[in-house]
Amino acid sequence: MSAIQTIVIIGSGNVAFHLGKAFKQAGLDVWGIYSRTYANAKILAQQLDTKSYVTIDAIPKDADAYLLAVSDSALVQVIPQLLQFEGILMHTSGSVGLDIYPTHLKNTAVFYPLQTFSKAKELDYLQIPILIESKDSIVLYELQNLGNKISNTVRRINSEQRKKIHLAAVFASNFSTYMYQIADVLVKEDDIDFNLLKPLLKETVAKLDKLSPMEAQTGPAVRNDEKTMQKHMAMLENHAVYKNLYQMISDQIKNKKN
Amino acid sequence: MSAIQTIVIIGSGNVAFHLGKAFKQAGLDVWGIYSRTYANAKILAQQLDTKSYVTIDAIPKDADAYLLAVSDSALVQVIPQLLQFEGILMHTSGSVGLDIYPTHLKNTAVFYPLQTFSKAKELDYLQIPILIESKDSIVLYELQNLGNKISNTVRRINSEQRKKIHLAAVFASNFSTYMYQIADVLVKEDDIDFNLLKPLLKETVAKLDKLSPMEAQTGPAVRNDEKTMQKHMAMLENHAVYKNLYQMISDQIKNKKN
Repeated sequence: MSAIQTIVIIGSGNVAFHLGKAFKQAGLDVWGIYSRTYANAKILAQQLDTKSYVTIDAIPKDADAYLLAVSDSALVQVIPQLLQFEGILMHTSGSVGLDIYPTHLKNTAVFYPLQTFSKAKELDYLQIPILIESKDSIVLYELQNLGNKISNTVRRINSEQRKKIHLAAVFASNFSTYMYQIADVLVKEDDIDFNLLKPLLKETVAKLDKLSPMEAQTGPAVRNDEKTMQKHMAMLENHAVYKNLYQMISDQIKNKKN
Repeated sequence: MSAIQTIVIIGSGNVAFHLGKAFKQAGLDVWGIYSRTYANAKILAQQLDTKSYVTIDAIPKDADAYLLAVSDSALVQVIPQLLQFEGILMHTSGSVGLDIYPTHLKNTAVFYPLQTFSKAKELDYLQIPILIESKDSIVLYELQNLGNKISNTVRRINSEQRKKIHLAAVFASNFSTYMYQIADVLVKEDDIDFNLLKPLLKETVAKLDKLSPMEAQTGPAVRNDEKTMQKHMAMLENHAVYKNLYQMISDQIKNKKN
């Protein structure tokens, strides 16, 4: 097996878009895009200046690698149709194991970019950790080289670890974003510009360069400031869910029962 | 009233430390530090290369301003002892209104830095929004000038707005940090380096420069990926509180009922 140079992308979502761009920027040859919805494949193919395939049969079978950047449920449907392909099949899911592939196949792998992707937001791909997995040591070696072309951080981890880091990422990223949504709703009620909060949010993350998440914890709960917490709960009278979350999370921070 | 040049700091915690440093860096004259615990006042005075006062009686009464950087409960105790002071009394609390001061006093104000402060973490003070309030227009003018000396962003807001932004900050900053704590606990269980998550966390915040918090939302809940959510809930069997939070927050993201 020679170094991965030619890649076909299956999927047309945020991960397909950004990894496609990263591969192009790294000088790799993105042969084309396939998506269940051809219109989407065509749009992404135009954005990446490459081909689009109308059917799976139209996909060339001799690319070095196939990036399966589709939803977990679509993976189950698409993988059985790719079993005759020669190149490496690599899915990008945080929560799906290697066991989604038939066990007899050697050219199977995971190429998981640990990042939050939105098409409208540009990214520095070098900063995105790529977490790779394969049962085949040669495949693993090729994925390591491929990863090194687009990122400064490529790590081999197993399926259990990847599932765990994906779960951790849901808390640390998706649920933080929901906390920002709550903040956005609250400040808008009093005509306050959400932008005022941005330096605080950036610093909240920047602190983690120096402090552990536990050391970085500030606020009324960690200093047991019951009076402020009572005031806050009273302000949330019209937001039952926020109030409930405020109580639950504050109790946890107070108790430090992790 | 002339421009604020001389300042006494009441308090020796994180806010006292960082605003004291910011004032010094801006060329203001920090006369000294008072704290209920003299040892703490002495430590901060050494750090800021200034004096410390053993008792409130020892504090000079003719400074231009007094920064009351103490807890909300200490504010109630200390303010009655400062009523003969000539300079501006300015507290730094997000959750306390102007009504903590006797109504007949004109030299009272709020000087609230919207940031998370830990002594171990250096800060670019210019990036910290300073939210000011006073009933007296001259005091407000002087606070605006003082704020401009240490920060690029000084805004006049009223007590209700400040209390609301403080509540929003608890969700957006303190509760995000608790989400990072959960992530930290989870990855450690599988010997994964928490540092791998940092580019994701930085990008999660950086996205807000381009997208609203609602537009920035990604993850299994917002795309209604029930299978992944079920897997995650199963992985949290031994973490009852995390599981409960996962369910509650995911339900909210799914329903988008803000």
